Amino acid sequence: MPIDLNCDMGEGYGRYHVGNDEGIMPYISSANIACGFHAGDPQVMRRTVQLAKLHGVAIGAHPGLPDLAGFGRREMELSADQLYADTVYQIGALNGFCLAENVRMSHVKPHGALYHMVNRDRELACALVEAVIAIDRELVIYTLPQGELVQAAQAANLRVAREFFADRAYQADGTLVARTHPQAMIKDAASAAARVVNMLAGQRVVTVTGEEIDMQAETVCIHGDERQAVLFARSIRTELERLGVVVSACERT
Amino acid sequence: MPIDLNCDMGEGYGRYHVGNDEGIMPYISSANIACGFHAGDPQVMRRTVQLAKLHGVAIGAHPGLPDLAGFGRREMELSADQLYADTVYQIGALNGFCLAENVRMSHVKPHGALYHMVNRDRELACALVEAVIAIDRELVIYTLPQGELVQAAQAANLRVAREFFADRAYQADGTLVARTHPQAMIKDAASAAARVVNMLAGQRVVTVTGEEIDMQAETVCIHGDERQAVLFARSIRTELERLGVVVSACERT
Amino acid sequence: MPIDLNCDMGEGYGRYHVGNDEGIMPYISSANIACGFHAGDPQVMRRTVQLAKLHGVAIGAHPGLPDLAGFGRREMELSADQLYADTVYQIGALNGFCLAENVRMSHVKPHGALYHMVNRDRELACALVEAVIAIDRELVIYTLPQGELVQAAQAANLRVAREFFADRAYQADGTLVARTHPQAMIKDAASAAARVVNMLAGQRVVTVTGEEIDMQAETVCIHGDERQAVLFARSIRTELERLGVVVSACERT
Amino acid sequence: MPIDLNCDMGEGYGRYHVGNDEGIMPYISSANIACGFHAGDPQVMRRTVQLAKLHGVAIGAHPGLPDLAGFGRREMELSADQLYADTVYQIGALNGFCLAENVRMSHVKPHGALYHMVNRDRELACALVEAVIAIDRELVIYTLPQGELVQAAQAANLRVAREFFADRAYQADGTLVARTHPQAMIKDAASAAARVVNMLAGQRVVTVTGEEIDMQAETVCIHGDERQAVLFARSIRTELERLGVVVSACERT
Repeated sequence: MPIDLNCDMGEGYGRYHVGNDEGIMPYISSANIACGFHAGDPQVMRRTVQLAKLHGVAIGAHPGLPDLAGFGRREMELSADQLYADTVYQIGALNGFCLAENVRMSHVKPHGALYHMVNRDRELACALVEAVIAIDRELVIYTLPQGELVQAAQAANLRVAREFFADRAYQADGTLVARTHPQAMIKDAASAAARVVNMLAGQRVVTVTGEEIDMQAETVCIHGDERQAVLFARSIRTELERLGVVVSACERT
Repeated sequence: MPIDLNCDMGEGYGRYHVGNDEGIMPYISSANIACGFHAGDPQVMRRTVQLAKLHGVAIGAHPGLPDLAGFGRREMELSADQLYADTVYQIGALNGFCLAENVRMSHVKPHGALYHMVNRDRELACALVEAVIAIDRELVIYTLPQGELVQAAQAANLRVAREFFADRAYQADGTLVARTHPQAMIKDAASAAARVVNMLAGQRVVTVTGEEIDMQAETVCIHGDERQAVLFARSIRTELERLGVVVSACERT
Repeated sequence: MPIDLNCDMGEGYGRYHVGNDEGIMPYISSANIACGFHAGDPQVMRRTVQLAKLHGVAIGAHPGLPDLAGFGRREMELSADQLYADTVYQIGALNGFCLAENVRMSHVKPHGALYHMVNRDRELACALVEAVIAIDRELVIYTLPQGELVQAAQAANLRVAREFFADRAYQADGTLVARTHPQAMIKDAASAAARVVNMLAGQRVVTVTGEEIDMQAETVCIHGDERQAVLFARSIRTELERLGVVVSACERT
Repeated sequence: MPIDLNCDMGEGYGRYHVGNDEGIMPYISSANIACGFHAGDPQVMRRTVQLAKLHGVAIGAHPGLPDLAGFGRREMELSADQLYADTVYQIGALNGFCLAENVRMSHVKPHGALYHMVNRDRELACALVEAVIAIDRELVIYTLPQGELVQAAQAANLRVAREFFADRAYQADGTLVARTHPQAMIKDAASAAARVVNMLAGQRVVTVTGEEIDMQAETVCIHGDERQAVLFARSIRTELERLGVVVSACERT
């Protein structure tokens, strides 16, 4: 059973650079590319699409809230119509660069505060789903295994890739342990890879308090902006392959 | 011989409104829709695409410089790479709304300062042409009859629609009389329509100083932000039809 | 007992215009000037400060959320530190134009969603108060008669001007009737003026359901973006003066 | 004879960081702080003012063009009125943080493309000078020893600090050798410091082609965004002090 490794990419802006896209791209199978609202500018988007294509990495749109100063991490009171239009705009813009490079976009993953808003609010989740369908109904939606977005996407017969966070500890209710908690982060790649393998084998994950909970996921999120991100990405990929897991992107419908 | 009537549309932003798109749309054949850089926001773009579709008006992208405060009217020192990427982004974003509404985009017309920059600078003209080709090489490029853009577009085998300004006086060298000149504007629609008919019949136009010069054009630009814009648009359309001229959009290749 | 008439001003941006500042300015005593985040640009701010000075109208900063597309009307998840810094920046910027025109700023009134956020959240209210103190502790804070901001401002010994909405109906709990309610708006200036006079005389207002509630206010908010705004402003000022009420700005400490 | 060491500071934005302000601040005497147009956001501005105050470093406004995507390095066609208003706005905003931290601003240095525009265009130079005077006519203007800005500032009786670039080679006409030239950069701090000392002693500098030309300057610009910026700043300061040169800020009038 294969697994997808996804990572946020193309989050620079003008002369500002973050992350190490060149270093991480070789180890992932799917790139979530910022679309200019919370990060990314047209030149960065172009280069990131080209880089993903070069490495055979699947390209996804990573739309965010219109808040560059807050990097899309501050929740905003968007109407469903606003969210729909902002999302069509962003996916469409990234699609321009896919057309230019003659590659097909494969997925959409909302960013930051938007990711949480659409998982909590049904109307917003539906607006996002409608925006994706408006552009291309074969796109895969990346989201949490539980919440409004996965439901809205499945109700609309969109393909969904449920996300597992290899480097984050879980609580008994399936949510992530807050970053402020001392055990929030899984710091070594071997443990993270083992968690992925166990999750794939048994569809379960051990929580921070020791219970096992259900966990089904088709994609694993790697963070690209940590200090050791390249090392972590390489290690987890190597470890997964050593354990016999095939890393490959989630296919379009 | 038919003629196209084009007008800039969708130039509002957030709570700001300009022009009277609903009033003018019935009288034109092509709408140049702002793409969010110099004007337009995603909701405005969506509504404008819907409005154009409702009236059977051809939809074009109207990319501009990244300068909302200056409404894209201040020249900026863009590199060819920046112009290329900014243009792919904007056309792509508008294309998102075309996909959403199930219509095909028909043309691209650069806005304001960008319109002049690509007519003067060969490298920028080529970058714009490459951006259009990257998205869809059947799109028609709207531009001045003379200048770098028309040449770059023709060299790339793109279809071009040359623009005639029905409401502006011309100089002997084919350029427009500056707006500060007392006779710069053709104020009555009957005169403007007559100019169009004469241009179509004889491929010539009488300049502000009385000479006749060559003028070949497939599209006539109507200004949507003047006080009497709706009246003017209606009058010129009515007058053209009375004179037997068919008003219809320039076809994609 | 005098009353202040305040109105939001300078809400254009680039080529976009809203409201009729020239028409309304003669009838108000205090102008709340947008500072470039939700509306207003540097040239608009300059002209608006000059216009207020010309009419002897007191100048206040009208800081908003960093959201031009949403006109500062969409709530955002700002930290207290972000709100503090955004507010110092905006008041400071407007103060630049006051220095340039040799006038003193008199007050600060938060805009739109920010107005509500600081009335509901103590930490944000304190951050706003600190920002005002950081610039000039003699500035008057405009706010609702009840809520976190009035308390935070009074606790810090800042002068407060409590706002009464002359053209809006009130509920029994002192909050405004939602705009969607058929009786939300007081449409004629005579009624609105009478409400102001009654409020001043008896420190009470009659609610939409007929009860009388306490209402103490030093300033009355006039809306500048309604269709009949100039007419309304003139009528209410004339009516107030006819009834013997002096219209004048709230003095700095 | 003392010399000032100035460096651009506070050029981050949101989650984006550039330069090493904490590392460089101890070695300079004047900080040019970005004001939010080409770089810098309100929180960054606040922290940078605090950091400068902590180190006893003089604080200057570093206004730029309204172009975050281009980092203020792309020339734009601004009118004198626009430049004036944009400058008052930016200096005013930074002044807000100076008021908040109870320090006085000492100087103004235009950034990037704006720096060159005001040195080339008299009308723009005058607009900048007027903006500075509008805020505080005791502020020192940092500029090239030759050009329109130094003349406009002196004509208005503003104090000027002429800049010398310690790490850049000069041409015979007093302009800088283009960065593309192999000898454009002075890479070791000892040579750079020696150049400063020689310039101070003899008011001359040796050009890239070996001639001596006149060079009078009161401030030396250090670049903060190079890889070795902290090392360079420390070395040049140490070397200057070893050679008996006092490093101190240019005083307000």
